[in-house]
Amino acid sequence: MQTKIILDEKDIPTQWYNVVADMPNPPAPPLGPDGQPIGPEALLAIFPEALVQQEVSAERWIDIPDAVREVLTLWRPAPLYRAHRLERALKTPAKIYYKNESVSPAGSHKPNTAIAQAYYNKVAGIKTLVTETGAGQWGCSLALAGQLFGLDVRVFMVNVSYEQKPYRRSMMQTWGAEVHASPSNLTEAGRKFLELDPDSPGSLGIAISEAVEQAAQREDTNYALGSVLNHVLLHQTVIGLEARQQLEIAGDYPDAIYASCGGGSNFGGIAFPFFADKAAGKKIDLVAVEPTSCPTLTKGAYAYDHGDATGLTPLLKMYTLGHDFVPPGIHAGGLRYHGDSALVSQMYHEGLIDAVAVPQTETFEAGVQFARTEGIVPAPESTHAIAAAIRDARQCIATGEARTILFNLSGHGHFDMSAYDRYLANELTDYEYPEEAIRESLEKLPNFG
Amino acid sequence: MQTKIILDEKDIPTQWYNVVADMPNPPAPPLGPDGQPIGPEALLAIFPEALVQQEVSAERWIDIPDAVREVLTLWRPAPLYRAHRLERALKTPAKIYYKNESVSPAGSHKPNTAIAQAYYNKVAGIKTLVTETGAGQWGCSLALAGQLFGLDVRVFMVNVSYEQKPYRRSMMQTWGAEVHASPSNLTEAGRKFLELDPDSPGSLGIAISEAVEQAAQREDTNYALGSVLNHVLLHQTVIGLEARQQLEIAGDYPDAIYASCGGGSNFGGIAFPFFADKAAGKKIDLVAVEPTSCPTLTKGAYAYDHGDATGLTPLLKMYTLGHDFVPPGIHAGGLRYHGDSALVSQMYHEGLIDAVAVPQTETFEAGVQFARTEGIVPAPESTHAIAAAIRDARQCIATGEARTILFNLSGHGHFDMSAYDRYLANELTDYEYPEEAIRESLEKLPNFG
Repeated sequence: MQTKIILDEKDIPTQWYNVVADMPNPPAPPLGPDGQPIGPEALLAIFPEALVQQEVSAERWIDIPDAVREVLTLWRPAPLYRAHRLERALKTPAKIYYKNESVSPAGSHKPNTAIAQAYYNKVAGIKTLVTETGAGQWGCSLALAGQLFGLDVRVFMVNVSYEQKPYRRSMMQTWGAEVHASPSNLTEAGRKFLELDPDSPGSLGIAISEAVEQAAQREDTNYALGSVLNHVLLHQTVIGLEARQQLEIAGDYPDAIYASCGGGSNFGGIAFPFFADKAAGKKIDLVAVEPTSCPTLTKGAYAYDHGDATGLTPLLKMYTLGHDFVPPGIHAGGLRYHGDSALVSQMYHEGLIDAVAVPQTETFEAGVQFARTEGIVPAPESTHAIAAAIRDARQCIATGEARTILFNLSGHGHFDMSAYDRYLANELTDYEYPEEAIRESLEKLPNFG
Repeated sequence: MQTKIILDEKDIPTQWYNVVADMPNPPAPPLGPDGQPIGPEALLAIFPEALVQQEVSAERWIDIPDAVREVLTLWRPAPLYRAHRLERALKTPAKIYYKNESVSPAGSHKPNTAIAQAYYNKVAGIKTLVTETGAGQWGCSLALAGQLFGLDVRVFMVNVSYEQKPYRRSMMQTWGAEVHASPSNLTEAGRKFLELDPDSPGSLGIAISEAVEQAAQREDTNYALGSVLNHVLLHQTVIGLEARQQLEIAGDYPDAIYASCGGGSNFGGIAFPFFADKAAGKKIDLVAVEPTSCPTLTKGAYAYDHGDATGLTPLLKMYTLGHDFVPPGIHAGGLRYHGDSALVSQMYHEGLIDAVAVPQTETFEAGVQFARTEGIVPAPESTHAIAAAIRDARQCIATGEARTILFNLSGHGHFDMSAYDRYLANELTDYEYPEEAIRESLEKLPNFG
């Protein structure tokens, strides 16, 4: 009985898969503040040309540079697991597989795109990458990637996390990154917020403003984003492309794929490479899993909105709860995003993919059951996918169907143990669906498209 | 250019290697408090018979039960890495390989023996395993193993760590273990220490007393130890046995093997399977690496001493700093042990293996260089092996030799980031060699053999 399906390093994909090529309609264009479509040139101030080209490409396959594949060998190909023990515990006839992205040095899928972004910036002659981070998963991934390609990395870390979650900060610094609590006095934006409140807890919105300001002002400095954008989702397709090979070796094909969905890169990474089959008529459920407390796809509006909290970025057509909606403080920080990837949003709007929302305590219950059967303690984000997979597997007991279920274990929970602590102490709550706050926030959306 | 050498699950060893079969002299027997050799039956009160048999066996190969190999597939075979990036950074002609044991769910090599111990106890009808833990690496591994085999696990965790390092405790609880701050009021020993000091910070010695007391008193309860004993080292030989296969695939053979050495199971695990070759005349350096602040092999006496701090265990002939020697508070908690495995000690005494001591700041410097080249942030224990390997690789620059160096990356440092924080802030010190304390402690040794 085999537990893992392992590929050789030579089986790391040589090309990324671009789902735009198989979408029935072209992606809705981003808009400027005046409601007019903006072209790719607007992005060149903060991104290298190669990434901007990927952002707007409709080519189905895009070559992965050898230098990127070489660094990916530090942890890829990631193993595909058959969750024998979880299946037995559930007494389900379903077959459950999971792709284990927690094996990267940063502990999640995020380095898949951080490495690619660092490479293209290095080749473009950039010296410094600037970014923002909340709890620190993305900041760690970019710190690692920058170090491996000889780029300086500067991270604006939301002040409250900087103080309360020092270990992700230590990890970024161990990888050589400069980490600043945000708001900082290094930028106009930061100084403005510090003047208003010298003890500001900060926010992702403020941190983005600081990072983008530096990237826009300096010739040798660019910005990097960890999700949402098309090129980020593109880089993550190595996950699904590997999983396809591995399931083929196992002689299986998924009836359903579950992945947690915050900005969308984790979901797109595993699900998109199976979409071509679905477009060709194959029956497969591609399910984005989100928290009930931040139900972007399941309760949001499909509308043009800003990608950041303060309204600095171009407008993207996406499912959104309104860019000033502040989600409740659930432990899956990576899923507390008001919007979603434009590609994921359009595919959901067109009925090509599905979405489901799961409450916090159900996700932790699933996470603990997973840890007690499969061993790995999952990240709170990943427990959303596990919970949805378990729902499906339980349904199979009722129907007697032996469905093949695949989910993405996007990361481990080694830096989230205080959340497990609270769950085990019965201190976690399921936040009410914040209907009023969402309605108020949605009312303020610009009236484009 | 290949980074990792990966084996199939079917290549997980089917037998453990027992170094006793190739040692030139039989192991010195353990002694009772009266200085007379004690037989294996003395151990049956707290260990199952199968483990006691392994403890005294001289058979070269001992079968690994299928049920144990099946659980090991959750993370084994562990990958062998060629450290291309570290080599380049060092500009060394040496080839550096490392075995990556950080891939287990608990994040270290410890589950290799925890799984085996849980299995044999389960088969023997035991319901509960009790153990002690300091920082929590071992407690986590046994919690995981107990959960996977359906055993209750109770961990006495040194009070000061229980309070200061809550995340390893949370991890044990996530895997279903009962964790008690030690001293506790659950045992005679605990109550005695609490009477003396209700706020006692605890010690490993006290925690061992509590665990052994419960295991000895209850029919359905046994004790489990994470290092030192022969059967523990035996279970860890899967590391070296896999590494042998992997180096053979790479077409290489090590000139030197480095592994950090606290109780000795990490070192024995990777080094012993290469000892048979050395016994047959092959030139290979097997080097145990310890901290200069707790220099058991390099500065201790080879004498009979207790394995625990309070003198409860039988006397083992080993290198020791005296069982009441308290090592300085270095961050590599797993290497703060006054003694060493009897097998490792005897082999060192007979000149069959080597040892070297490395100061704390050098180990963290090596750990950061490793993280910045190879990605993984290593455990403070593992940085000792890295530092020694780097010394060797630097020596190769001087001599021009292209030596093949293998070390064991015994674990990751995800729960040790505060130590990296202190190192990066220049707050770590190299403790003076505690000569006076060691001398005083050694003077109290019983005068046997």
